[in-house]
Amino acid sequence: MSLVVVGSVAYDGVETPHGRVDRMLGGAATYIALSASAFTDVRIVAIVGDDFADEDTKLLESRGIDLEGLERVPGKCFFWRGKYSDDMNDRETLQTDLNVFADFSPKLPESYKKAPYLFLGNIQPGLQGGVRAQMNGVRLTGGDTMNYWINDFRPQLLETIRQWDFLLINDSEAKLLSGESNLRRAAERILAMGPHTLIIKRGEYGAMLFREGQLFMVPGYLLDNVFDPTGAGDCFAGGFIGYLAEKGFDLDAGGVDKKELHRAVIYGSVMGSFCCEKFGVDRFRTLTRKEIDARFEEFRRFTEF
Amino acid sequence: MSLVVVGSVAYDGVETPHGRVDRMLGGAATYIALSASAFTDVRIVAIVGDDFADEDTKLLESRGIDLEGLERVPGKCFFWRGKYSDDMNDRETLQTDLNVFADFSPKLPESYKKAPYLFLGNIQPGLQGGVRAQMNGVRLTGGDTMNYWINDFRPQLLETIRQWDFLLINDSEAKLLSGESNLRRAAERILAMGPHTLIIKRGEYGAMLFREGQLFMVPGYLLDNVFDPTGAGDCFAGGFIGYLAEKGFDLDAGGVDKKELHRAVIYGSVMGSFCCEKFGVDRFRTLTRKEIDARFEEFRRFTEF
Repeated sequence: MSLVVVGSVAYDGVETPHGRVDRMLGGAATYIALSASAFTDVRIVAIVGDDFADEDTKLLESRGIDLEGLERVPGKCFFWRGKYSDDMNDRETLQTDLNVFADFSPKLPESYKKAPYLFLGNIQPGLQGGVRAQMNGVRLTGGDTMNYWINDFRPQLLETIRQWDFLLINDSEAKLLSGESNLRRAAERILAMGPHTLIIKRGEYGAMLFREGQLFMVPGYLLDNVFDPTGAGDCFAGGFIGYLAEKGFDLDAGGVDKKELHRAVIYGSVMGSFCCEKFGVDRFRTLTRKEIDARFEEFRRFTEF
Repeated sequence: MSLVVVGSVAYDGVETPHGRVDRMLGGAATYIALSASAFTDVRIVAIVGDDFADEDTKLLESRGIDLEGLERVPGKCFFWRGKYSDDMNDRETLQTDLNVFADFSPKLPESYKKAPYLFLGNIQPGLQGGVRAQMNGVRLTGGDTMNYWINDFRPQLLETIRQWDFLLINDSEAKLLSGESNLRRAAERILAMGPHTLIIKRGEYGAMLFREGQLFMVPGYLLDNVFDPTGAGDCFAGGFIGYLAEKGFDLDAGGVDKKELHRAVIYGSVMGSFCCEKFGVDRFRTLTRKEIDARFEEFRRFTEF
């Protein structure tokens, strides 16, 4: 079933211990959409400048991603440049040029409005709320946020996420949002803010899902080489909601069995792990569903007892 | 089946965000033995001074732990004092008085020498090797070490662990020992050093087991409150080898099925998690096998998909 994805489509410059790329396709919506497109049909809402390359349009189209909502305006695409630490658990932002993204005011094409699944990538919380308001009968809404919005746009963020079914953030964001350093207590507080489901990403250490009376945890996939972790969290999001959309699940009581929700977390982990294997979105140029399902089974083998 | 445990029996002073205890029973052998005694009969090899309290002797005896190898000499017990960081992922050592431990030269009582299971807690590698040499037909040997021995006693450590079946260390020790920052590659290098099985502890993030063609990973148990992580890694070791000894498994090909080895890692994780629930060894004063097995089942529920 159709999934609408909102967020940034950008160019990134990335340096990791494995190398450096000065300019490559990036942005949260790009990663979420590429990942989710392995499971379901995806419609992007984003903005790009007139420097957005034909080959990048073609890559997205080749995965069946609907670009009617990709607004093209004069100017340059959002550009981010960063450098990862040696262990790749930290990164330093060296440059952020918002460019056309500064005036992003998401407008949904008519054909998007009845899509049942919506994922709101990390953008200003008011814009996230505005997108949801344009949807007509959305069945499942989830989204991401970041430290900047939690600190400086807290009331607006709380108002926005109150309407979401799930929130998908990392552990430091969960601690910041809840004011609790213990993740179990942090989760309790966040589940009282509106979303009935919380997924906490822990980078190389895996992920957790919290719901009332339900906890699921999975360790991170152990890669031989992490080439570039950029976008891994967004690919997790794409795998998680992509699997739910493929199966037509919602998250209401009775809408999905517990184990299926656990499997959605595994598919998220699988997609995040593939993302790290090459620079930028490169792994998605060749990734097949067969490889995805094989890694899903690998997760089963190394966690079963 | 009988398990011999070698290491320190000590007193600790510990400060965590939850409180402070100036002097309480501690030491690696104490934690390993208390944890393993939930599964199998345990014999301790250690040294204490004449300040070792009767109530502490009684606690160990109450769990059926054989103290024939607990040497009592004039002087004071090993004393360690430390303070944990707010998130309890780091700790600072404030005081280390080796006292009688400085002259520890482990001598095995005759009754210990035919025990089939041996766990060598973190002491000087030459002493670990000497203990194993006194054993007669030991079936399974495992042990721990630490950064100090890896850095300053490397040749002796390598000679010692070459004879072990398994090495059980934490992630930073695995990286230091192997010279590899990637854990998969670190494990490959360590498995080439002798032990055919490697268990890497990751604190709150769980644990992993590596063997040729086998990988198992488990996330850490999510506690509401970590009161005091002192001894958690040693309790993990006690649960892991304790379960293997209870079942009479060895680790040779065909000696244990893969899933049982995974279950041993889960029992290790269970025992490490209980350890953190109270200061020092306090949780082991009341812990029952029923509680242990209930938490084992809880691990199953929150990792199954």
